[in-house]
Amino acid sequence: MSAPFRTTRRVEFRDTDAAGIAHFSVFFNYMEEAEHELLRSIGSSVLLQDDAGTTSWPRVAVSCDYRGAVRFEDELAIEVRVERLGEKSVTYAFRFHHQDRDVAEGRITAVYCRVGPAGLRSLPVPAELREKLQVFGGHGN
Amino acid sequence: MSAPFRTTRRVEFRDTDAAGIAHFSVFFNYMEEAEHELLRSIGSSVLLQDDAGTTSWPRVAVSCDYRGAVRFEDELAIEVRVERLGEKSVTYAFRFHHQDRDVAEGRITAVYCRVGPAGLRSLPVPAELREKLQVFGGHGN
Amino acid sequence: MSAPFRTTRRVEFRDTDAAGIAHFSVFFNYMEEAEHELLRSIGSSVLLQDDAGTTSWPRVAVSCDYRGAVRFEDELAIEVRVERLGEKSVTYAFRFHHQDRDVAEGRITAVYCRVGPAGLRSLPVPAELREKLQVFGGHGN
Amino acid sequence: MSAPFRTTRRVEFRDTDAAGIAHFSVFFNYMEEAEHELLRSIGSSVLLQDDAGTTSWPRVAVSCDYRGAVRFEDELAIEVRVERLGEKSVTYAFRFHHQDRDVAEGRITAVYCRVGPAGLRSLPVPAELREKLQVFGGHGN
Repeated sequence: MSAPFRTTRRVEFRDTDAAGIAHFSVFFNYMEEAEHELLRSIGSSVLLQDDAGTTSWPRVAVSCDYRGAVRFEDELAIEVRVERLGEKSVTYAFRFHHQDRDVAEGRITAVYCRVGPAGLRSLPVPAELREKLQVFGGHGN
Repeated sequence: MSAPFRTTRRVEFRDTDAAGIAHFSVFFNYMEEAEHELLRSIGSSVLLQDDAGTTSWPRVAVSCDYRGAVRFEDELAIEVRVERLGEKSVTYAFRFHHQDRDVAEGRITAVYCRVGPAGLRSLPVPAELREKLQVFGGHGN
Repeated sequence: MSAPFRTTRRVEFRDTDAAGIAHFSVFFNYMEEAEHELLRSIGSSVLLQDDAGTTSWPRVAVSCDYRGAVRFEDELAIEVRVERLGEKSVTYAFRFHHQDRDVAEGRITAVYCRVGPAGLRSLPVPAELREKLQVFGGHGN
Repeated sequence: MSAPFRTTRRVEFRDTDAAGIAHFSVFFNYMEEAEHELLRSIGSSVLLQDDAGTTSWPRVAVSCDYRGAVRFEDELAIEVRVERLGEKSVTYAFRFHHQDRDVAEGRITAVYCRVGPAGLRSLPVPAELREKLQVFGGHGN
């Protein structure tokens, strides 16, 4: 049994542009913040410190399709699913609604990495974290 | 004969994040600014006023794949191609390099629209504008 | 009797910079969002439509003093006071704390304006709005 | 003999808001980028690595007064003066013009600091850097 993670978000004034609507790029900030909320909800974080240093989730691919515009102070309902859980990566799928209107659908694929002085090195997602992420799995409809 | 539009861009401090690198979302701002430069270079703009009001290019789909990180003050070389020119839409493809390093590749699909009191209405791209955009056409490699 | 308006705010990843802390400029976005929350709490908005068109609150002066840094996911406590209520303007004073630590103090002075085709024209703040704003008045300590 | 540092900046689409103008907070990003250009012009940087680690210039006080609005694609002329050079700090004054119109005037006070594991420690500005900054000194009019 799985269910998406749900959160809400109000469009801030800094997120709007001269076309009078939320700028297309801020949907990626909204996706990222929803991902971070999901990680906090399972006791994790996008930046984790352990004995060996820092681990993080750098993004390798992101996308968004837009179906409608939203404006200052509109409240967005955001649904997050773990669409694919690879050995070292996760793909989140996001759906944005405003009231009953379908607004946008996006994806972020991130790789679990050790952040070291020599750069990033990908790692298998720890078993405990995998289990917690699977709760949000499934493709939905 | 066609050739990509080329421009450069320096990573600003506001574009970086606590991971010490340019935040993934700012690549969409860099793509958009390169698109706007391309439009200015052919005497157009992303927001045009004419006798009937305003026309613009709202985005319907965007994506980006990341292959490397860039840091504060790094200078990015950006290449823009018109990958597809539909009757009412255009898809731009963007490549980002830092020195000789492949950094990211992205796409923006935008629809030519009349902006009216009742919302947006898609329109055929005017012949003169099509011709100018075709100069940047082709898939390249 | 008056009391400040209080709200909280978590530092988002997009708000951090390569120094690992919240970028100084985002405090102005946090101030503005706190102001907008305050206005919503009294049934108003920073952008109001009435029979004569739109009124808004363009900023004429802003400032911020920084006393400490905050990091990704830190939760800020924000206190807003109406420090001065002029005939046509308002000055808000903001205090930011993280846990018991004094982080920053800022000010925004905004002028009540009619937004028209010929630009902005300042107006007296309506009596009903003045009364509601006065609830948050006083200098505090 | 001294003269201000001069640069220009075009208002980007991401810098505008639903009021159709450049958002007030982006003037701080423009100030900061002009400061960074000034530092690069004298062979320095806002983040410097030396044998003892990293030095930087955290901000302690910033302000801006607004006299007019600017819009998407407007080009701003920016003038930077070193208004005050303390033992451990510098205050930059910025003036923004669009064509012949006075748009805004701002200030940033930053403290020269060693960035260490235990936080920030202020340091005297090195003699060589002081000399180079003084070139941009004076109050002007």
